[in-house]
Amino acid sequence: MQLLEQRILRDGEILPGGILKVDGFLNHQMDPELLTAIGGEFCRLYAGCGVNKILTIEASGIGPACFAGLAFGCPVLFAKKNRTRNLSGEFWTSRVWSFTHNVENIILVSKKYLGPGDRVLIVDDFLANGAALDGLISLCLEAGAEVAGAGICIEKAFQPGGERIRSRGIRVESLARIKSMSDDGGIEFC
Amino acid sequence: MQLLEQRILRDGEILPGGILKVDGFLNHQMDPELLTAIGGEFCRLYAGCGVNKILTIEASGIGPACFAGLAFGCPVLFAKKNRTRNLSGEFWTSRVWSFTHNVENIILVSKKYLGPGDRVLIVDDFLANGAALDGLISLCLEAGAEVAGAGICIEKAFQPGGERIRSRGIRVESLARIKSMSDDGGIEFC
Repeated sequence: MQLLEQRILRDGEILPGGILKVDGFLNHQMDPELLTAIGGEFCRLYAGCGVNKILTIEASGIGPACFAGLAFGCPVLFAKKNRTRNLSGEFWTSRVWSFTHNVENIILVSKKYLGPGDRVLIVDDFLANGAALDGLISLCLEAGAEVAGAGICIEKAFQPGGERIRSRGIRVESLARIKSMSDDGGIEFC
Repeated sequence: MQLLEQRILRDGEILPGGILKVDGFLNHQMDPELLTAIGGEFCRLYAGCGVNKILTIEASGIGPACFAGLAFGCPVLFAKKNRTRNLSGEFWTSRVWSFTHNVENIILVSKKYLGPGDRVLIVDDFLANGAALDGLISLCLEAGAEVAGAGICIEKAFQPGGERIRSRGIRVESLARIKSMSDDGGIEFC
């Protein structure tokens, strides 16, 4: 998606350790115009796939997922990290290693909102090692929901998550696929 | 806002301890059609107020804030709870007591995205004790940004936050103001 690639080149920032900061337009601070285009593109890619629910994970997936939900006209569900007092009842759960924070999170969604009959598009801002996406797929399988596929804003294609998950037969569409990044700010797309 | 009040009456659930669960349409699972209406209503209420930025706090404020940003056509910034590795640089910070989780969080936003010249609408899903809203107002004041006001989806008007913050001269618009709730499921709006 040219609009997103151009924005990454213009406003993205590369930090040591292979970190791409896009917090001026995609997470932390979000540009609704760009996110509208992103949601529309996911909808175009998955048209006719019967998607009736968007699933993401807090916090930075929520923005792109909301705009996907708007484009599809379907509910948006976000997995919570760890249990909170206000989440009573029963949950589907999964374990996700966070490479960002170096902790294992339990992620959970209410059984009320995910089950057989749901055909889910999983949306997230980044795909790198694929830990979050693995966890969200697990939630769907545990719930008996079908995974239509994943809609990713930015994939670090030089990290193993995307290939591993595609090799399981799961459709993954990434709007910007980064082939390589250099510490001097150079970014090459696939 | 009649649409929201009706939805609360239809799909909200009262739990012991004065907890109102709206996780089927407002947080956890979100209804984009309802959120579009909510964003549009905030935009109508604050028309002509010069709002150029929406500020909220992760995670459940992000949905309503995104749709407010879409209606206003301005960026949406969410405060993060505690520091993460990917947030380098300098931040405005504030301390917020979470009555939901019984912990104190440091909330932070990047100084790059909030400063003098910003005229901020603070958006959140709930207003009860007002701790989160206090913290977000503090971030704005620290940054030298102006607070145009707050746009709240649901205010528990029987808790002290709304009155305390309005008495500081800050405009607070709540789309559904709950006067009282009873454990048998009765909800009375202001």
